Amino acid sequence: MTSGTIHGVGLGPGAQDLMSVRADRLVRGAAHIAFFRKAGRPGHARRIVEGMLRDDAVEFAMEYPVTTEIPLADPRYNAQLSGFYAECARHLATLAQGGADVVVLCEGDPFFYGSFMHLHSRLTGIVPVQVVPGITGMSGAWTASARPITWGDDVLTVLTATMPEAELARRIRDTDALVVMKIGRHLGKLRRAVAAAGREDAAWLVEHAAMPDQRVTRLVDAGAVAPYFAILLIHGQGRRP
Amino acid sequence: MTSGTIHGVGLGPGAQDLMSVRADRLVRGAAHIAFFRKAGRPGHARRIVEGMLRDDAVEFAMEYPVTTEIPLADPRYNAQLSGFYAECARHLATLAQGGADVVVLCEGDPFFYGSFMHLHSRLTGIVPVQVVPGITGMSGAWTASARPITWGDDVLTVLTATMPEAELARRIRDTDALVVMKIGRHLGKLRRAVAAAGREDAAWLVEHAAMPDQRVTRLVDAGAVAPYFAILLIHGQGRRP
Repeated sequence: MTSGTIHGVGLGPGAQDLMSVRADRLVRGAAHIAFFRKAGRPGHARRIVEGMLRDDAVEFAMEYPVTTEIPLADPRYNAQLSGFYAECARHLATLAQGGADVVVLCEGDPFFYGSFMHLHSRLTGIVPVQVVPGITGMSGAWTASARPITWGDDVLTVLTATMPEAELARRIRDTDALVVMKIGRHLGKLRRAVAAAGREDAAWLVEHAAMPDQRVTRLVDAGAVAPYFAILLIHGQGRRP
Repeated sequence: MTSGTIHGVGLGPGAQDLMSVRADRLVRGAAHIAFFRKAGRPGHARRIVEGMLRDDAVEFAMEYPVTTEIPLADPRYNAQLSGFYAECARHLATLAQGGADVVVLCEGDPFFYGSFMHLHSRLTGIVPVQVVPGITGMSGAWTASARPITWGDDVLTVLTATMPEAELARRIRDTDALVVMKIGRHLGKLRRAVAAAGREDAAWLVEHAAMPDQRVTRLVDAGAVAPYFAILLIHGQGRRP
């Protein structure tokens, strides 16, 4: 029997019609889909494709055993996640070895801070794996802000808000354009770092980019909490004839 | 008469089916399209949509008056480009004011180092302007390399190879993951900067990502010249349970 293929498919920032034509075809044609989600939640990736799936599509929900309950630095965090990814990869490999193609739904772009990478590294060499790039959440965010992110020779730095405050401030000071991901409960620290870098007036917070409840706020006007998918932007000011 | 809309439409990295569903619909339905190109060339954006346009689509080719003939620092460079963008914007505004929608074809994502931004800033407030984000060329490049670009809390720095060598080296040393754009005739300088940063073994050059002649080479094995659209990558090595 010929092996099936595992497709890691980038869904883009959230609007169905911002999926690529290739992704759209794969999602609509899939006999098997798989997606990550927090236990007890519908899952953001799954929600994006609502109404697009075949009636007989078999769904495999991969529920994180842990998200923020255990600190990242705790060795149990890594051990639990590692076991979880291995188990998911085994299930997908079994499907492919049985001849089935599987579409793994990935928010944004699969190779840009995506969970699919942990399956990709475990499946490569075992069964055929294909990746379909997607429009990143940050592209969705700067499009929502209605202003370009980089001009001319601007340097763009992409950070996660998880890093220490002083390191955040140093890097925010040392770039033209900035994107900060994974904000959530780090918003207070991020605000202080942006202020320490003297760039409060240039910073914008984009929530739910490309979705109906999209919201673009100056950082100074933002509330005390931000959703995990909020993205902070500082637009570059480079050469513009 | 109701004004038409100028749509800045991201085409993605080059494969037609990596265009978003929204972009695909706009391109196929467009009565008017516009695109930048170097004089005497077919134009890369125009080439991507070959075979997709309406038979009666009216095409407006915007030919750069100058590309590398005048150094960037020469004031005539800015003056010529500024006049050119103003003239293009005037033509598009006239079309929209006459009731026509116009699709401006943009390689990659319009707000990420794109020429469309120079029209966007001149048209905003004059006629309705809408932007459709696209899969960036760099997403196309890291997908072509078959390896994720960022893991966990990796810092990603995006640079243009136009900057001075010492500054390039400093920034290449100070990041986890790296993307370098606008390489072309700066390849020699970029190579020296990557070597000075001690990261030669980790650097990859991707040419024509997502296109039939896609090529992924270790930087140390690359030739002496690279096309303008070549992208250099260093993949992040962050947390991976």
